[in-house]
Amino acid sequence: MINRACIIRLSRYRQTLIRLKTLNFVKVFSENLANSAGITAMLVRKDFSLIGISGNKRGGYQIDDLITVIDNILGKDKIQKFVVIGIGNIGRALLNYPNFKQIGIELAAGFDVDTAKHNRESAIPILPVDELGKFVKKHGIRFGIISVPEAEAQNTLEIMVQTGIKGILNFAPICLKEQPGCVVNNLHLETEIENIIYFTNAEEKARSLNV
Amino acid sequence: MINRACIIRLSRYRQTLIRLKTLNFVKVFSENLANSAGITAMLVRKDFSLIGISGNKRGGYQIDDLITVIDNILGKDKIQKFVVIGIGNIGRALLNYPNFKQIGIELAAGFDVDTAKHNRESAIPILPVDELGKFVKKHGIRFGIISVPEAEAQNTLEIMVQTGIKGILNFAPICLKEQPGCVVNNLHLETEIENIIYFTNAEEKARSLNV
Repeated sequence: MINRACIIRLSRYRQTLIRLKTLNFVKVFSENLANSAGITAMLVRKDFSLIGISGNKRGGYQIDDLITVIDNILGKDKIQKFVVIGIGNIGRALLNYPNFKQIGIELAAGFDVDTAKHNRESAIPILPVDELGKFVKKHGIRFGIISVPEAEAQNTLEIMVQTGIKGILNFAPICLKEQPGCVVNNLHLETEIENIIYFTNAEEKARSLNV
Repeated sequence: MINRACIIRLSRYRQTLIRLKTLNFVKVFSENLANSAGITAMLVRKDFSLIGISGNKRGGYQIDDLITVIDNILGKDKIQKFVVIGIGNIGRALLNYPNFKQIGIELAAGFDVDTAKHNRESAIPILPVDELGKFVKKHGIRFGIISVPEAEAQNTLEIMVQTGIKGILNFAPICLKEQPGCVVNNLHLETEIENIIYFTNAEEKARSLNV
């Protein structure tokens, strides 16, 4: 299994490669990708050698080859269907997010316990949570996003795992644990904000000491 | 400067410590925090020793002491004001997010180029982007969140840096680079989703090979 840092770099390379492709570029050098990602060219070459692609010092890498291999690794060679559980502020923003289609993600349905939010007729239907199991089975869903309030997050996770969902991205402000047979990643807004505050303060302190 | 992984762990410890405090706990052992964060007790003790707090094998750590020191490091000992630039789906969800107050964050204002979105009377006012500089100066704002479309992200970043904003969390689907005098963290939804797809597929493959 490739480690998380490398997967994140592959995502970034891919975003740059897609942009180069729209500019009709055919080849790219590790130096260019390194500059774009803010890392060393040696690390780029190491990553590509890890995924079985070798370049040519003179000629660089074929952009199409790189995209094909990275898409295969990232599971972007087919459309991946997600469900969103919890249609509050964040859930609603996700359902309205225009970029998912572009990146090969289909939000198949939203689920909420609040009957006032249900809507079977909308482009992405919003359904009662007790229909989740049936929906997941019928549509072969493997991925889900949790955007419920903190108090319901653990229970929601357990319901999702029972339905057979295999991968979950959690937006609820609580760190959910990995489950047997289900991968869980936590995207914790509070931690991200604490991070930016700390590093900003630390940089300012460092600068003031250097004066 | 403490590294990013350690800062993320300090955020997590803090969340657990706050919950323990609501249960009237006074002390905690490194083992408990380790279990809660899914890491080793030795790493917890190393982190605490790094921030200048020593425990006692018999007695554990004083929860209040830990929270005070962590709050100071994370800048949570005072309210931190943020502005949000770009009031689309994500920006709107952030303005409505109820948890910020609890965690010592004040969203002071939103900014957008679209006059239809401006509202000086709402609890968090939504103002024209060309008023950003004046607002930042008047209210002593140091932090901002970018939630504009990809095409406007780089330009928005430059405007924010010019106004004197020192730390930025970027939600736009493009990796923005660090600026001189301004820390930039990218929270890239697409990368998070690619991550969960990759690790889910990799886990399933590993399990099927073990059968």
